[in-house]
Amino acid sequence: LSLADDVRAGDVRALARAVTIVEDGRPEAPALLGALFPHAGRALVVGVTGPPGAGKSTLVDRLAAHLRAAGRTLGIVAVDPTSPFTGGAILGDRIRMQAHATDPGVFIRSMATRGHLGGLAASTGHVLTVLAAAGKDMILVETVGVGQDEVEIAGTADVSLVVLVPGLGDEVQALKAGILEIADVFVVNKADRDGADRLVTQVEAMLSLAGPDSARPAIVRTVATADEGTADLLAAVEAFRVRAERSGLLARKRRDHLRRQFEGTLQDRLRRRVEETVLGREERERIVDRLAAREVDPFAAVDDVLGKMGW
Amino acid sequence: LSLADDVRAGDVRALARAVTIVEDGRPEAPALLGALFPHAGRALVVGVTGPPGAGKSTLVDRLAAHLRAAGRTLGIVAVDPTSPFTGGAILGDRIRMQAHATDPGVFIRSMATRGHLGGLAASTGHVLTVLAAAGKDMILVETVGVGQDEVEIAGTADVSLVVLVPGLGDEVQALKAGILEIADVFVVNKADRDGADRLVTQVEAMLSLAGPDSARPAIVRTVATADEGTADLLAAVEAFRVRAERSGLLARKRRDHLRRQFEGTLQDRLRRRVEETVLGREERERIVDRLAAREVDPFAAVDDVLGKMGW
Repeated sequence: LSLADDVRAGDVRALARAVTIVEDGRPEAPALLGALFPHAGRALVVGVTGPPGAGKSTLVDRLAAHLRAAGRTLGIVAVDPTSPFTGGAILGDRIRMQAHATDPGVFIRSMATRGHLGGLAASTGHVLTVLAAAGKDMILVETVGVGQDEVEIAGTADVSLVVLVPGLGDEVQALKAGILEIADVFVVNKADRDGADRLVTQVEAMLSLAGPDSARPAIVRTVATADEGTADLLAAVEAFRVRAERSGLLARKRRDHLRRQFEGTLQDRLRRRVEETVLGREERERIVDRLAAREVDPFAAVDDVLGKMGW
Repeated sequence: LSLADDVRAGDVRALARAVTIVEDGRPEAPALLGALFPHAGRALVVGVTGPPGAGKSTLVDRLAAHLRAAGRTLGIVAVDPTSPFTGGAILGDRIRMQAHATDPGVFIRSMATRGHLGGLAASTGHVLTVLAAAGKDMILVETVGVGQDEVEIAGTADVSLVVLVPGLGDEVQALKAGILEIADVFVVNKADRDGADRLVTQVEAMLSLAGPDSARPAIVRTVATADEGTADLLAAVEAFRVRAERSGLLARKRRDHLRRQFEGTLQDRLRRRVEETVLGREERERIVDRLAAREVDPFAAVDDVLGKMGW
């Protein structure tokens, strides 16, 4: 496939086209991904998540500038599952795109819509495959919302940064079990604000309950707007990578990621197959009519569909 | 089915048991739901969503007290897709359970875990089926998070309340397109606070751009902690119901709800069938091994699985 070759050769336009094909789930996506997948194992995927207002976009910008200055190529994927309660991501993304517009070493894409090939998490995985096969050293995945979707996406990264800020209130950033599971590095951003020390102490207290010292996520203070702490953060990411490679954690994370990508793809294909064979639009609406009239219940309706498929 | 009869007769213990069976997706759930589904069309389902800190739980409490005083029976379902950035819901729910513990006219259940039968939205739908078949007049579905999951759950209600508060900041409650689509009634809670007028004006301005006057959602001011505006809010809900019944909107909403419930159930059954026939745990891990070694890509692996099923 010529497009796959162009992507692997680092052609910027080919990369943009390939990402669009994959994101839109076009018919040629499976063959393209099949050609790229064997070459997609090298990039380090860094997830950046946290509540709105934590300064994630600015932080990602600073990380990108440092990495570029060190001669590394990177991709930035901003994922917004279009939650009505979050906003501004697309605008921030546009501003960022302008800042890096002349740099072919940075590829930026925002994924803002739903209904992706196998779910948004799986679709993000496919985009990562394309970027990794294009030879990017690091891919930053920024999730702009605060829901479970975003956590799932962030959780598919090799390294997950959870960005917190002082003063957002406990309710917004309540440090429940879920965050412990995904955070590899905690970032206390806007660390020049009142309450930063208290927040660091809270996170430390939480972590001390959670497990032995050796497995504890680092806590890094940053002031992204002033580019303070960015180098420390990159050092913490690298330290995590080295440790996770040695312990086998990185390999386990990548397996989980691939398992989810496989399951999402399977789910999607099953759905499509059922639609194409026994459950076209008309038949579906006929079933919904009968459900609305309470003539059949959802489970019995599903039994009918499976029966028609010979199951 | 005797349990279904007991549920329909209003037996509180039977109701609790039935909800647990459905929530856990136990083997007897399909038959139980099949027996209850024909009798589940009457209850009005009211969704309550909004950002953390908006006072949704207190508001739901006040609505419940007013409805009980008017002799109506109700169910309260609190849905928390275990987002690590939200918190406190389960605690709030426990407090509420104590307040209504002696009142058999209120049934309260929180759904806090994932991995539900056909997804959390579908699972919520099944629980609503049980509560409606038990003869509840109204069911309040409170979603405690702010992500897409919660919006989907709230969007399956007959009437969706979106609760906003002054001073949370535009970023948290940015009024994007998604919120317009689900909101039937806007609630400006904590309306005694500074900024309430400005928030109402903002919502009005947004609504004036969106469509003709007749279809515009009402905006109701409340101070839930002081029980102010609760009666107005219930009146707005009732006015919406009457209008939506007349216009056919309510029937369309219920069709959409049932369509989603059917699709979630179908998806779940397909997944289970594949697991039982060709994709047991061992086979799945063998595939993940090959993915991790980059010997096969996710699409080719899915083709293999479908091939083994004779597709």
